[in-house]
Amino acid sequence: MIKRYSNPAIAKIWDDEYTLLLWQATELSAIKARENMGEVTDDVYDEIETVLMTTEIDLEWWRKRDKEIHHDLNAFIDERVRHLESTLHQYFHRKMTSYDTQEPAFATKLIKSLEIIGDLYDTVEAALVALARKYRYTIMNARTHGQEAELQTFGARCLTWLAELRESATVLHQENRGLMFSKLSGAVGKYGSIDPDLEKMALQILGFKPFYGATQIMPRILYLPIAHGVSGVVQVLNKIALDIRLNARSGRPLMREPFSKKQKGSSAMPHKKNPIRCEQIEGMDRMARNFTHMIEENVRTWEERAIEQSSVERVAWPSLFHVTARSLSEMALVLQGLQVYPDNMLLEVYESRGTYGSSEVKEFLKDRMMPLGFSYEDAYRVVQLACFNVFELPSEWLEVRNLVAKDFRHASASLTYVSTLEMPPIDSIQTFIPHGQLRLTDELDISGQDVARYNACLVEIFSKGEVETWQAWIDCFNPAVLLKNEAVLYWEILGE
Amino acid sequence: MIKRYSNPAIAKIWDDEYTLLLWQATELSAIKARENMGEVTDDVYDEIETVLMTTEIDLEWWRKRDKEIHHDLNAFIDERVRHLESTLHQYFHRKMTSYDTQEPAFATKLIKSLEIIGDLYDTVEAALVALARKYRYTIMNARTHGQEAELQTFGARCLTWLAELRESATVLHQENRGLMFSKLSGAVGKYGSIDPDLEKMALQILGFKPFYGATQIMPRILYLPIAHGVSGVVQVLNKIALDIRLNARSGRPLMREPFSKKQKGSSAMPHKKNPIRCEQIEGMDRMARNFTHMIEENVRTWEERAIEQSSVERVAWPSLFHVTARSLSEMALVLQGLQVYPDNMLLEVYESRGTYGSSEVKEFLKDRMMPLGFSYEDAYRVVQLACFNVFELPSEWLEVRNLVAKDFRHASASLTYVSTLEMPPIDSIQTFIPHGQLRLTDELDISGQDVARYNACLVEIFSKGEVETWQAWIDCFNPAVLLKNEAVLYWEILGE
Amino acid sequence: MIKRYSNPAIAKIWDDEYTLLLWQATELSAIKARENMGEVTDDVYDEIETVLMTTEIDLEWWRKRDKEIHHDLNAFIDERVRHLESTLHQYFHRKMTSYDTQEPAFATKLIKSLEIIGDLYDTVEAALVALARKYRYTIMNARTHGQEAELQTFGARCLTWLAELRESATVLHQENRGLMFSKLSGAVGKYGSIDPDLEKMALQILGFKPFYGATQIMPRILYLPIAHGVSGVVQVLNKIALDIRLNARSGRPLMREPFSKKQKGSSAMPHKKNPIRCEQIEGMDRMARNFTHMIEENVRTWEERAIEQSSVERVAWPSLFHVTARSLSEMALVLQGLQVYPDNMLLEVYESRGTYGSSEVKEFLKDRMMPLGFSYEDAYRVVQLACFNVFELPSEWLEVRNLVAKDFRHASASLTYVSTLEMPPIDSIQTFIPHGQLRLTDELDISGQDVARYNACLVEIFSKGEVETWQAWIDCFNPAVLLKNEAVLYWEILGE
Amino acid sequence: MIKRYSNPAIAKIWDDEYTLLLWQATELSAIKARENMGEVTDDVYDEIETVLMTTEIDLEWWRKRDKEIHHDLNAFIDERVRHLESTLHQYFHRKMTSYDTQEPAFATKLIKSLEIIGDLYDTVEAALVALARKYRYTIMNARTHGQEAELQTFGARCLTWLAELRESATVLHQENRGLMFSKLSGAVGKYGSIDPDLEKMALQILGFKPFYGATQIMPRILYLPIAHGVSGVVQVLNKIALDIRLNARSGRPLMREPFSKKQKGSSAMPHKKNPIRCEQIEGMDRMARNFTHMIEENVRTWEERAIEQSSVERVAWPSLFHVTARSLSEMALVLQGLQVYPDNMLLEVYESRGTYGSSEVKEFLKDRMMPLGFSYEDAYRVVQLACFNVFELPSEWLEVRNLVAKDFRHASASLTYVSTLEMPPIDSIQTFIPHGQLRLTDELDISGQDVARYNACLVEIFSKGEVETWQAWIDCFNPAVLLKNEAVLYWEILGE
Repeated sequence: MIKRYSNPAIAKIWDDEYTLLLWQATELSAIKARENMGEVTDDVYDEIETVLMTTEIDLEWWRKRDKEIHHDLNAFIDERVRHLESTLHQYFHRKMTSYDTQEPAFATKLIKSLEIIGDLYDTVEAALVALARKYRYTIMNARTHGQEAELQTFGARCLTWLAELRESATVLHQENRGLMFSKLSGAVGKYGSIDPDLEKMALQILGFKPFYGATQIMPRILYLPIAHGVSGVVQVLNKIALDIRLNARSGRPLMREPFSKKQKGSSAMPHKKNPIRCEQIEGMDRMARNFTHMIEENVRTWEERAIEQSSVERVAWPSLFHVTARSLSEMALVLQGLQVYPDNMLLEVYESRGTYGSSEVKEFLKDRMMPLGFSYEDAYRVVQLACFNVFELPSEWLEVRNLVAKDFRHASASLTYVSTLEMPPIDSIQTFIPHGQLRLTDELDISGQDVARYNACLVEIFSKGEVETWQAWIDCFNPAVLLKNEAVLYWEILGE
Repeated sequence: MIKRYSNPAIAKIWDDEYTLLLWQATELSAIKARENMGEVTDDVYDEIETVLMTTEIDLEWWRKRDKEIHHDLNAFIDERVRHLESTLHQYFHRKMTSYDTQEPAFATKLIKSLEIIGDLYDTVEAALVALARKYRYTIMNARTHGQEAELQTFGARCLTWLAELRESATVLHQENRGLMFSKLSGAVGKYGSIDPDLEKMALQILGFKPFYGATQIMPRILYLPIAHGVSGVVQVLNKIALDIRLNARSGRPLMREPFSKKQKGSSAMPHKKNPIRCEQIEGMDRMARNFTHMIEENVRTWEERAIEQSSVERVAWPSLFHVTARSLSEMALVLQGLQVYPDNMLLEVYESRGTYGSSEVKEFLKDRMMPLGFSYEDAYRVVQLACFNVFELPSEWLEVRNLVAKDFRHASASLTYVSTLEMPPIDSIQTFIPHGQLRLTDELDISGQDVARYNACLVEIFSKGEVETWQAWIDCFNPAVLLKNEAVLYWEILGE
Repeated sequence: MIKRYSNPAIAKIWDDEYTLLLWQATELSAIKARENMGEVTDDVYDEIETVLMTTEIDLEWWRKRDKEIHHDLNAFIDERVRHLESTLHQYFHRKMTSYDTQEPAFATKLIKSLEIIGDLYDTVEAALVALARKYRYTIMNARTHGQEAELQTFGARCLTWLAELRESATVLHQENRGLMFSKLSGAVGKYGSIDPDLEKMALQILGFKPFYGATQIMPRILYLPIAHGVSGVVQVLNKIALDIRLNARSGRPLMREPFSKKQKGSSAMPHKKNPIRCEQIEGMDRMARNFTHMIEENVRTWEERAIEQSSVERVAWPSLFHVTARSLSEMALVLQGLQVYPDNMLLEVYESRGTYGSSEVKEFLKDRMMPLGFSYEDAYRVVQLACFNVFELPSEWLEVRNLVAKDFRHASASLTYVSTLEMPPIDSIQTFIPHGQLRLTDELDISGQDVARYNACLVEIFSKGEVETWQAWIDCFNPAVLLKNEAVLYWEILGE
Repeated sequence: MIKRYSNPAIAKIWDDEYTLLLWQATELSAIKARENMGEVTDDVYDEIETVLMTTEIDLEWWRKRDKEIHHDLNAFIDERVRHLESTLHQYFHRKMTSYDTQEPAFATKLIKSLEIIGDLYDTVEAALVALARKYRYTIMNARTHGQEAELQTFGARCLTWLAELRESATVLHQENRGLMFSKLSGAVGKYGSIDPDLEKMALQILGFKPFYGATQIMPRILYLPIAHGVSGVVQVLNKIALDIRLNARSGRPLMREPFSKKQKGSSAMPHKKNPIRCEQIEGMDRMARNFTHMIEENVRTWEERAIEQSSVERVAWPSLFHVTARSLSEMALVLQGLQVYPDNMLLEVYESRGTYGSSEVKEFLKDRMMPLGFSYEDAYRVVQLACFNVFELPSEWLEVRNLVAKDFRHASASLTYVSTLEMPPIDSIQTFIPHGQLRLTDELDISGQDVARYNACLVEIFSKGEVETWQAWIDCFNPAVLLKNEAVLYWEILGE
């Protein structure tokens, strides 16, 4: 991963130095296991361990040797063994194949990387929880298809983000089956020169159980769920980032990612505050999925193994972790510093003209129109018509809507004209429907006769409306009523 | 492809019936070529052709035979040959291998599919051209990062859509190298039993040239650019669809895809008008790219061929064309019926407070501040500060912004309160800057001293401003000036 | 999925008829839940259920209506409700949004599809177990990098296939978290009109628990592990298929997929027996992964949902199950009828000249050469040299190897010449090394002096070799010794 | 890209230093263009150029500044401008947006990278041409489905590799449309502050033409064909690598990638020579395709641009070029040092028992059996039966084939037994068929009666066979006849 997006802790896990230390750990565990099994005397392990732990691995020497013999693990053995007395050479990498050494090291790197990802994840989760709590009663329009839908609180939206993110993160919090196992079963996985008990004991020292059925390597299917899981976290982060970007669109932004005091939005346009962190997470998502797809293809190998997967794993695994770490740390910054604008949320609700209650209103009318001989379909159409009616423009604005500028002078004039117009009044279906003044519209296929019947019906419902009717009507638009059940989300998700 | 998204014309090209007719065409072309080369007498071709053209292929018979012998091409030969006199059998499929018959048929199917796609594409292009012309002077804010940027016309945006779409569509309008060639060179492509001249002649009848270097099949790399090209069209359509969706967000939509009179937006919420066609194109894009990725993998085959690519091609190619056709026909409907709201475009420009001119203003100030001892960086900061200042809220609104509702009663009250507040006045940097009343803001790292220096400077510039200064200043915000160069786009892209 | 690769049982689950029945089941469960909660009287549910269960859904009517209103779920409600008395209309789909109805139906389709896949999987697993048992003592060369490696039994290889396949199949045998939950929480998932208890009760009837934190739809991240899991099964099947293909290469095939008595391998070449089923599984793998990638992208949606995922899911999910079912049923046929050739396996071992023991030999020599002043590296080099030596050609064959034909006459003559040559004798390192007659080779960087030292050493080891030496030596090549530990695999994997 | 797979020349093109130099080049070209247009006086450009060209860019300073303002291009401007006299500041980056500076730089990096790839490609192509020439008459079995098919020369196979590789490489040798254009049209691509003539002139200096219809950035669809093209090269290289790996399988390898004198194949098994370079190319292919898929997704951006594509491009483009360069350089080494074994190729042909002529034989028999009242289907069946017959084992070998070892002692004994058996005689259909001694087989559904009829017919054909019959018969197996048409491939592909 290029430095710009590289996470230092991840980088350390995947660099040569740590890799070689992990290889050494496997080798030592095998010698220790032999000691435990009585195959070698006690001093052998101690002598070897003492030398190796006190003699740093010479990376340059190793790299040079690798270039010569085209075999990195053999080069490592050569580097290590040269520090040992010759009588000890035989105990090192005894009867093992390269991947006996490398597989536990590889699994350890995955485990360590997941730990780092897990820590970063916790910060994001904590930030989401804080937002959910803070904005528990901050109302806003929910949106489906980008269109204003029913009401919700911003806190509850944070809970949906949180719930989805948690689902994506099981890989970080469960014991991953693929990381419980490793192998030390020789060149083709059939224990040709190796006692299965040696494998069991050496792996135990390293924290693993034997996988029975390995070939020269562990079957790569075991690691796929890790990659899929980690990539899934990035995908959900990107879903959250996308929502923030949608809500940060200028004009009437509902929220914004933080913008630092010295930050510049654009070299050309000094007024810009761009959601660049959230946008970057979209880029990270594109990468995370495709790094995972590289890893997926590693399941396909020849017989007891071929080495196609090696280069892919050297590149794709650390890269996947880097982009995941980056996504998490960027998202943490965004959420911790998120600027939320309740004024604009309220304005948006207000200007949506009561349509947030359209579903409730439909049920309200169904219950009252059907006894009067109307169908449930009629109730639907009444609400639809009312909602369309309250968005109809006054004539001076309608004129502007239908105007197509003929040249730039015309365009400039229109711009000036618009700045002088009074904003259209905001009518709400809450007040509109009880008046029974539905109007024909060419947007819907409803006849004048039907409109008349609907209006008569509405007048009847509301004119003879007793207190209960009106109470029920008002409740259709009352946040406290509409959102009372959000409490269950807080209870189930946050336990509060 | 499931029926819902299937294009009938594409379906016909890829169904069994047409496929077998194309196989027959290859077989006949080979016999005709033999006749031309003097290998068989004239009557042979005529007799065979007469019988085959007048005897319909019995698909059921063929399918049953295929099941028995596990070889669709051999089953086809059996079906055809049984109608011929036995003396003619030998001339049919003589010395050919299955893919000698199938490859020209396959290429023909690609060609025919591209024609259908090409026709649909033309409708979309025409709709875009019409929009670009109609809205040539309809101004709107361009947006980068979702943030209002400089001014543009909606017509010019349509031109950028058009220019990108055209780039994606070269595959539809050029002679595709991969479709100029085919093969009839025998079982391993080495002409073991086949005269290269026979190949040349037979392919010529079918409209192809020989590809020298085929194996049993054509190298699949030849067809990749077709898949990539077609998929690219969908990707650009999706970019356009995404822009429309972004602009159709309710509140103050700038445009909307058409909504039919009987359409229902939602089973729950009667007020909804959802951009479902544009959203579907996003789905099509997800499919188009991944169908293409299936096809990509077909390059990897064994030696003189293995048959992994066959199943993939049976599924992925027609599917790719179906989703492309669907995307084009949906987009044609969207663009032809696009509802455009110039009133909201103007309102958005107006409410963006002159920031659309921030880039011009920065240059204006640079030219005038630098002679007064300021740096270009100072000019940048003045504009940035002014832009931030004009968006500052009056105190009653600021209070709402900083309010975090404590319960739903509080939230309801805020909603009511907001509906009673007067909207904040719309100040523009056009009037703000010349007054030299920049204010400190905690959003930027600018000192009070600097603000004072900047204000003094602005006063100097504008107070002693001669007519030229003011003319230049006004031009910074004049659409006719700012957008005059859009004419070059119309000229270069539409030739008008 | 095209008919050729379609599984009828999968097709049935995803067709319109079954889908609508599942939607009906959700609607009924909601009414039943209302009855349980005392919201509606007992007779309401019974009346509705009786009518709906006895009146078939008219698919044509529904399709026509969908075309008109562009909303499949609303069209379904219209179809169903028209059969009910008008007083009952209000109870149907009451306060629900489309995806309240569709989500449990969708999850049920996934569950049913997994059951079918699970059954097919069991057949494959059984076939693998049978092979592993039958060939428990049938020895063959293991291969890494396509090169002959150590010995193994074919039975043990089957166990590695089995172990990997089982790992891929956890999705089929565990309770999948994503399928335990569903939702009935209204248009934006905030229970605007719906009692959380109603959701709990209705879902319980359908076999689900509520997912707290849904939006209008379930978060798509929940279903990703299903797609990844199923696709993983295909990937492992393809790994097995690839191994079979590699082993079926003609010349000296070790195994072959079954070839039916009427089957034709090629229209041109009657002698062909092609592994077309295994090759097709490679095609299925290409599709399975990419269908899954389509599904992956569905995590990215807008706010409380947009509908991009819908078209993708209609296509990709059933397609994924179809290609998985196809892969399993083809693999079952292949494994059940697998033709295994122990003669060729033995021949291959024999002709590999004892190199299968090279690892043991290396350890044997290490133990004996190091006391004589040699390094472990020397032991490695001795084995390497010996292995290269025993593959050296006799002069008449070497001549052929170095011959580059100058024209086709020359080539023909060589072919005839080769047919007259006696095959080179098969020497083994088992007999070669003890003789201490290592030879210089230009393939390795070993000096003549070293070769001499090595030979002297070997002579010393073996000449003064006591019985134990020779016994240890013979054991290096003894299958019973080398493969004794395979028993642990049988025990751990099959429990026998 | 990690260092192991990094190409230094590619790395240089994409590092910060070169990037900033290219940005500087754009800035200078814009100033020069202004000079040409008379907007600035001559000395301005000269002064600026002199300073910038003689003052190295301080990368550390720049990185620090970038971190502060979160804007790399602005930080670059700051770094450069600080070296200029303040009166010159205004001319730098005047009226431009960041991507006006970056786009030509980006396109230049693609062009330079393609040049390096092109050079590496030429080496591979040259190596393939050399192989094709050298082995023009070296015969081998072609293989389809991994099964021996008709004859070919190894030279001709190299030609098919070459032909496919050339098709993949058009991106390297044509003028790529996407690289002919760039942009300098301001913040939203509408020339708000920029004269289109300035764009034209500045781009001309840099070697580009204006793309009319850009937004803030170039439409990303323009660069997709580059990524697809480059990735296609890797895919074809991998197809070649796969063929080499298949042919390098030990036992009877037909060719091998070079193995250096100090190389070690395995830490466990000293005898191994693994095709690790070819295997690595498979890994590179997995990466190349998926890096390209990352790039594909960049077409989807918001309106006049958002910045999701930036991070992806920083990573994916150089990575794609690195893996391509690596694949080419590895393949060059493989092909230049390819060890080819004509002896094994001949042996394989010989042991395939004349089946390479089965297609010719089928035609031979068709022509002669049909006049005797047999069908073309009969001819097919005769050849199929003969081919199956000649592979039937003598009884002692059949016994081994049917033997399933019961324990390891049994297995060992079989191994010894096989080593003592004489190899089965190699019969060829060339001598077998004329004898008319076809035998029943349970592999085919042919009755004893039919076998008898076939034998009688064969006897008739060959017994009364005149010289022409026998001549025609022999030609069915004569390489010179069968492969004479390969000459056309040499002519068409190599012009010789």
